[in-house]
Amino acid sequence: MNVSSDRLRDDIEANAAFGELATDEGRGRTVLTGSDANADARDYFVSRLEDAGLDVRVDSVGNVVGRWTPDAADPDAAPVAAGSHLDSVPEGGIFDGPLGVYAALESVRTMQDERVELARPVEVVCFTEEEGQRFAGGLLGSSVASGLVELDDALALTDDDGATLESALEEMGYRGEGLVDASEWDSWLELHIEQGTRLEDAGIPVGVVTDVTGIFHCEVEIRGEADHAGSTPMPGRRDALAAASELVLDVEREANEIVETESDSAVGTVGKVNVAPNATNVIPGRVELGIDIRDVEAASISRQTARVKEVCERLERERDVETTFETHLDVSPVPLSERCVEAVRAGADDAGFDCMTLHSGAAHDTQRVAKATDAGMLFSPSRDGISHNPLEWTDWDDCAAAASALAGGLRELASE
Amino acid sequence: MNVSSDRLRDDIEANAAFGELATDEGRGRTVLTGSDANADARDYFVSRLEDAGLDVRVDSVGNVVGRWTPDAADPDAAPVAAGSHLDSVPEGGIFDGPLGVYAALESVRTMQDERVELARPVEVVCFTEEEGQRFAGGLLGSSVASGLVELDDALALTDDDGATLESALEEMGYRGEGLVDASEWDSWLELHIEQGTRLEDAGIPVGVVTDVTGIFHCEVEIRGEADHAGSTPMPGRRDALAAASELVLDVEREANEIVETESDSAVGTVGKVNVAPNATNVIPGRVELGIDIRDVEAASISRQTARVKEVCERLERERDVETTFETHLDVSPVPLSERCVEAVRAGADDAGFDCMTLHSGAAHDTQRVAKATDAGMLFSPSRDGISHNPLEWTDWDDCAAAASALAGGLRELASE
Repeated sequence: MNVSSDRLRDDIEANAAFGELATDEGRGRTVLTGSDANADARDYFVSRLEDAGLDVRVDSVGNVVGRWTPDAADPDAAPVAAGSHLDSVPEGGIFDGPLGVYAALESVRTMQDERVELARPVEVVCFTEEEGQRFAGGLLGSSVASGLVELDDALALTDDDGATLESALEEMGYRGEGLVDASEWDSWLELHIEQGTRLEDAGIPVGVVTDVTGIFHCEVEIRGEADHAGSTPMPGRRDALAAASELVLDVEREANEIVETESDSAVGTVGKVNVAPNATNVIPGRVELGIDIRDVEAASISRQTARVKEVCERLERERDVETTFETHLDVSPVPLSERCVEAVRAGADDAGFDCMTLHSGAAHDTQRVAKATDAGMLFSPSRDGISHNPLEWTDWDDCAAAASALAGGLRELASE
Repeated sequence: MNVSSDRLRDDIEANAAFGELATDEGRGRTVLTGSDANADARDYFVSRLEDAGLDVRVDSVGNVVGRWTPDAADPDAAPVAAGSHLDSVPEGGIFDGPLGVYAALESVRTMQDERVELARPVEVVCFTEEEGQRFAGGLLGSSVASGLVELDDALALTDDDGATLESALEEMGYRGEGLVDASEWDSWLELHIEQGTRLEDAGIPVGVVTDVTGIFHCEVEIRGEADHAGSTPMPGRRDALAAASELVLDVEREANEIVETESDSAVGTVGKVNVAPNATNVIPGRVELGIDIRDVEAASISRQTARVKEVCERLERERDVETTFETHLDVSPVPLSERCVEAVRAGADDAGFDCMTLHSGAAHDTQRVAKATDAGMLFSPSRDGISHNPLEWTDWDDCAAAASALAGGLRELASE
């Protein structure tokens, strides 16, 4: 089964007009939750769901669902759902989110065209505030739908100006009723751009995600002593930056060791460094490091974080510095459902596309939904791995290939 | 010969009122060149010179000189000069600069009281814009007096608002005539706070400076590739921060090696680090490092800078990053005059104070004057090595001890 590449492209391009950026290179958009651009994108999505004959509902946190009940299906059977999100980061790309939403809709249209016989209804979903750029958190609508965040807590979230999510949804006309309940779905699939280069490097158009990595974020502060770089002799210095540099290199070394010996999906990154007083002629007295550790194996994340703490203790002894360690994020790895993985593989195979399995290093709504029901995920290649940027790009043929695998996967799951 | 501790203290405390800060701890002042506080400090200094019977002149760049011609001296003999500066960094301390200016004046008053017989006149000097906090450069008045900076270039320097040094001097009434010419001095001495802890650690009140270190500042930029910290596998990363961390540690290692094998005054510091995009979940794509290298041995500075370049080349090969190296400051080490060192030693000995020789790791007007005539320098202990801060402190007894060594040194030099 193959979707219509043109129809999918038309929807993604129509959606790209909402919050469109004027850029010299690439195509970008800014669609923050509750903005005019978000309202327009939602209105267009609802109209496209209705054009395809789906029954649309909006829940209390603004999640939008279009339901298709094929003639032969049991209307009371647990539905199979698919989708993604329509909000973006500031100056983001046009594929991150919309590809998954419109590929799900296109899958339904293709199944309608092909008059496939299904046992279950299919739902096409747009989750609210996946990017978490205006209201804290991220993965918000899916977290509420999966019972991981309380509705009231979500609605009470505020933006930088103190406006609540509830008021933002009301202003858009997307403060609906009831709640989408992911645990009532038989299963869930999401197509997303890879945001990495593994598919591109392999020349394969469809990625089948087996796991979403766990993410551990911590901030380490190292305090030494700020002194005059000229009049302070080398012996006895308490240089916070030299200490921090040992930690940066150790985070890299430990991740590389785990990749070689235990788990090739392990990554460890120091992405943020703030130095005080940060003047060329002053020995750094304080350094803050933001550390990002991920893997599909919880044991690997634990090993990496334990190592950070060990190195901090060693630095305290050897360099006479003080360190503090603060955990900012600790999300467990999520293995995806085997039957979803198999359904997607079968879908790719049926449509005639090669696929490869990989893990997701980034966070996605699917990792929330996986807490409530069987979940699977597909990736499309990202040119040069770029995302959250107007240069984000996936060839239209690749979009259609993965959407066809999605359609086939949904057919598999909804046939049972 | 011993100066009056009280008289010296009274002048330093009177001067501390100009630009005084309200601080909970310590005593601070902000005296930028051309400010009201600077004008008041200069007016007070001139009045104190006149009180002591000195002939005051102000030169075209605002340097203030008070000349004492003892009865027995040849008025046409090349004078011996001493002094420092009255401007400060923002929120600086009360000793950095004023100690040297008023210790020179107190030395003259003491010699007057003791009716010492001298062969040469003595000049007490306040140089303009030593700190370089309002008009670019630093060591400005001494550089002009030493023929290292042209008067017109100095006067044309502008502050952040576009005001010239010339207009700032005119507003204060300190745009004088002619130029102080350091090459016409027989010799020069400056007393300054150490801004380090070697005297404090040794429990010795007087430091005799033998060399002012050379200073080399460079900025190294390392460009790798910014990527998603989650979806970019470890192999093939081009992490600019990991590369930068190797360089930070190598700068430290190389300086330590030179200290152990060649020159114990060598220092190497990475004081500044700017990372882009500087987000915990993004692999750093670009890092700027500000590197400070100093020593009294030019060969040691050359070895350290060559090493920085070698490491950059290695990082380019091993880590697939690009590096650029930009020199921002390159000041040669300045050995001070042996006869000045001996004069100061004799002065300390005569006044009954222990002294030790050391080098200056910081920049001072003396390194400019040393290009034009025989120059020497004394240090007073700095509590905890702190300077450029209201916590900067030197005990009054230590001020007087070093001022007495200065007075004795001036007597030695002016007797010949």
